[in-house]
Amino acid sequence: MAIDSFYPPQRILMGPGPSDVSPRVLAAMARPTLGHLDPLFVGMMDEVKELLKYAFQTKNELTMPVSAPGSAGMETCFVNLVEPGDKVIVCQNGVFGGRMKENVERCGGTAVMMQDDWGRMVDPQKLEDALKANHDAKIAAFVHAETSTGAMSDAKTLVEIAHKHDCLTIVDAVTSLAGSPLKVDEWNIDAIYSGTQKCLSCTPGLSPVSFSERALDKVRNRKSKVQSWFMDLNLVMAYWGGSSKRAYHHTAPVNALYGLHESLVILQQEGLENSWARHRKNHFALRAGFEAMGLQFIVPEAERLPQLNAVSIPEGVDDAAVRAALLNDYQLEIGAGLGVMAGKVWRVGLMGHASNTRNILLCLGALDDVLGRMNAPIQRGVAVAAAQKVLTA
Amino acid sequence: MAIDSFYPPQRILMGPGPSDVSPRVLAAMARPTLGHLDPLFVGMMDEVKELLKYAFQTKNELTMPVSAPGSAGMETCFVNLVEPGDKVIVCQNGVFGGRMKENVERCGGTAVMMQDDWGRMVDPQKLEDALKANHDAKIAAFVHAETSTGAMSDAKTLVEIAHKHDCLTIVDAVTSLAGSPLKVDEWNIDAIYSGTQKCLSCTPGLSPVSFSERALDKVRNRKSKVQSWFMDLNLVMAYWGGSSKRAYHHTAPVNALYGLHESLVILQQEGLENSWARHRKNHFALRAGFEAMGLQFIVPEAERLPQLNAVSIPEGVDDAAVRAALLNDYQLEIGAGLGVMAGKVWRVGLMGHASNTRNILLCLGALDDVLGRMNAPIQRGVAVAAAQKVLTA
Repeated sequence: MAIDSFYPPQRILMGPGPSDVSPRVLAAMARPTLGHLDPLFVGMMDEVKELLKYAFQTKNELTMPVSAPGSAGMETCFVNLVEPGDKVIVCQNGVFGGRMKENVERCGGTAVMMQDDWGRMVDPQKLEDALKANHDAKIAAFVHAETSTGAMSDAKTLVEIAHKHDCLTIVDAVTSLAGSPLKVDEWNIDAIYSGTQKCLSCTPGLSPVSFSERALDKVRNRKSKVQSWFMDLNLVMAYWGGSSKRAYHHTAPVNALYGLHESLVILQQEGLENSWARHRKNHFALRAGFEAMGLQFIVPEAERLPQLNAVSIPEGVDDAAVRAALLNDYQLEIGAGLGVMAGKVWRVGLMGHASNTRNILLCLGALDDVLGRMNAPIQRGVAVAAAQKVLTA
Repeated sequence: MAIDSFYPPQRILMGPGPSDVSPRVLAAMARPTLGHLDPLFVGMMDEVKELLKYAFQTKNELTMPVSAPGSAGMETCFVNLVEPGDKVIVCQNGVFGGRMKENVERCGGTAVMMQDDWGRMVDPQKLEDALKANHDAKIAAFVHAETSTGAMSDAKTLVEIAHKHDCLTIVDAVTSLAGSPLKVDEWNIDAIYSGTQKCLSCTPGLSPVSFSERALDKVRNRKSKVQSWFMDLNLVMAYWGGSSKRAYHHTAPVNALYGLHESLVILQQEGLENSWARHRKNHFALRAGFEAMGLQFIVPEAERLPQLNAVSIPEGVDDAAVRAALLNDYQLEIGAGLGVMAGKVWRVGLMGHASNTRNILLCLGALDDVLGRMNAPIQRGVAVAAAQKVLTA
């Protein structure tokens, strides 16, 4: 068979994630591996916790990365907080609400689905109504930033409503962390999970989570054991916990954590508010280019995520052919539609390290060329200038 | 707060894992991140599967790395194969058999524990007796290479016995894969999991698994859904499966997989049998040094793992002080005892890239110095020469 070493090309990642990784993060991942109980490594773990608290804007002691991708972070939240028989209100406005339902049901809970249109924010009034109709609900769950559509929901208001009805909240912040304002303590979020491969400019594979004391009370007082050994916070806490005596649980993914550490140091150096502002400013520039070209956003302006821009594919254009041409001719990856959006939209990410002027100009110029070659119904030769006007304003 | 970038020192990792990572693997991890649906990345995933089949010596189509550490690989095996009410015989001869029990119970199964002394192999006769006494058992589970003690069990014989009694088998090969003979197909193992941070010379964070058709039949015909969404093989198969149309499940840990790919290319270039032979030869050299020094192995010779050497701590010697001196003065990490072995043994790994002549001489020389300084009851100045005699034989 004789398989050779793998040398990937240098792509520009402007899809829904993974997004461009900072070269500083890649360099960090190649540093010498330490033992996972080495005092120096344990010190680094403590720093990762501190830096994550800053990113999440929380003082929650249990703030740490789950040693697996975002979907395991999601499961960590549900599997610890949902007990058999619990009723959970799940607000769905895209793919990931559906995954939450799966999680609730596999924990033996009942999911009450509250549907919103894909491409719209979660409607607070619908949550209020659902909670009034389901007095016995224990948890409300929703996605802050829907990666499948680019819609941002009003997490603060949704949490307020849930708390008024004595429900804990589980919030998906996979795409929002570091890209859009997110304030775990100020908004009183109970349990939250994210990913490293979006606005943190890190490689995929880890899932930062944070749990409030209110959420941990529920975990500590469960009637049944958490069904997952790997994700049981009672065990994970003893490993990542504040005590000096760390209980062995699993072997931490040492080098992946070097990468996360570095990405969080970069975020701290830029400043969280500056990162939010950069994502917003770059979104405006890309938007100007898309609109000049004639591409339509699928999410109403007030509900749009700056870091994930979903636009309708123009009439008669071959989705896959465009993405293949961008990839092959420009080494540029943009995202396809997911679920019911497949074939109908492109998802263009401006996340973390990828949210920069160079990428905006490249993406607009490349799309202008590729769509032009295919005689797509777009305005040609105007997108880059429109974006530059915003960038230099 | 202002936390700086983290620069780990270059340690020599001779504990129970993570062990020394090949510089080729570290370099691979720093290569540019691709999208997880990029055709080039998907091609690399196929190569990883092929290379893992070689490492496991199997043709099992479902052979792939779980996107999380070894303990999640263990859970993937149990959560898919154990249904509520199933009786599972668990052979325990160290820490990890206990973790299997936890897994069985959290899946709603009943674990029948078959205890062997720590530091000994699993006794086939006891398994036979347990299966005769439990006709309704569905699964037998055991650890091939106990990382907590350094004992190797006779996987081939244990699987034969289990099959005679119509039981599926789950085998922990975290420490054996690539270090000791392991033949999944020839031995008819049904489900097996391993880790990347031992004899594969890779960083921690992934868990290679392999499932036979017999095992997958059970997964496909379950009465209840797999309780974990993240680990449900029905979903994971569609992502890692052979079909050209890959269903999105989770975002693969792209750069970690670059590392695993490179480590498997290295294994293929060395040759699996050569890797086994190297681990064996280096073990003999280390053993000669330890024995010359007067250190006693806790596992009888015929049951010893070459890649994990557990020796008793000499009378009156301060365990933690010795390990701290090795770490601080020699940048050398050896492992402490785990569970009931804590404070009583050292675990010295010679795994993967770490199984080399330089490490043997360093370890023996450093121990000679550190133990000598502490006036430990050892024979001084003889260990290195004893090892060299074996190495040059």
